[in-house]
Amino acid sequence: MIIKEIASRRSIRQFTDEPVSDEDLEEIVKAAQFAPTERNTRAWEFVIVRDQKIKDKIFEGFEQPFLAKAPALIIPVIDEVKTTLPIQDLSIASAFIFLQVEALGLGAVWKNVNGERAEKIKEILNIPDNFMIINIIPLGHPAQKLPPHQESEFQKEKIHLDKW
Amino acid sequence: MIIKEIASRRSIRQFTDEPVSDEDLEEIVKAAQFAPTERNTRAWEFVIVRDQKIKDKIFEGFEQPFLAKAPALIIPVIDEVKTTLPIQDLSIASAFIFLQVEALGLGAVWKNVNGERAEKIKEILNIPDNFMIINIIPLGHPAQKLPPHQESEFQKEKIHLDKW
Repeated sequence: MIIKEIASRRSIRQFTDEPVSDEDLEEIVKAAQFAPTERNTRAWEFVIVRDQKIKDKIFEGFEQPFLAKAPALIIPVIDEVKTTLPIQDLSIASAFIFLQVEALGLGAVWKNVNGERAEKIKEILNIPDNFMIINIIPLGHPAQKLPPHQESEFQKEKIHLDKW
Repeated sequence: MIIKEIASRRSIRQFTDEPVSDEDLEEIVKAAQFAPTERNTRAWEFVIVRDQKIKDKIFEGFEQPFLAKAPALIIPVIDEVKTTLPIQDLSIASAFIFLQVEALGLGAVWKNVNGERAEKIKEILNIPDNFMIINIIPLGHPAQKLPPHQESEFQKEKIHLDKW
């Protein structure tokens, strides 16, 4: 059977005003830290933003500025000096974050950032130069309800046996 | 509570000879296909290798040639023409694969590939030029038992509140 959280996880972009507890945020980052990393380098760190002014600054000029209303943001960052697979390790940690968020009855979305926008966010958050940021994860209590993934989404034709 | 599969998942490199069933392999790829992708492009495909000769060819010259003994390999690949975030989407799908593998009582490991080795594997598997490969996931029934992740691994000091 598909893991419950994998089946039910959907990208959530609308949140209620209810804050996310310290306990839940800690649990979510812990799950991220149980993710595998390149040669066990564990080079990530996690910035959690709940200050509305900082959230507003981060989402200034975004095509989805309403994401600033999310009660919390998690921004995973990684020391590029320590790892040779920064995007992989950040992405895997983010995937674990999504599933743990789901397990806690919360919702989240991957908001991609790169280039100048990534640099601007690093500046706002005072993140050291040697750290890479690839996304922002807004999260909170869902204000939208999306159905779980369906059997019909599975594309069996995308499986190639032994050779393409 | 941390999701059971996140807490218990460890990188497994030793496998018994017992084959992985078609049903389990399908379930694992289905879990991967429930992963979020850039703008829902779902540009990945999945090669499953169980033919011993092909596994041997793939792991020729590897520093861990014994991985060729894994009863199955999953190689997620992604169409670089369709997505702008190939590494992210492959990594997230791989993370979901690891957790679903764990849910089925199986074990797996991320074997990184890039450069010439990636090209060689694409050639062996007849993977089209426009597809990217970043890893091989050997999997099977674990022949090693590793303890689950411990509370003590959690580095709370890697959480930064509102600013670094």
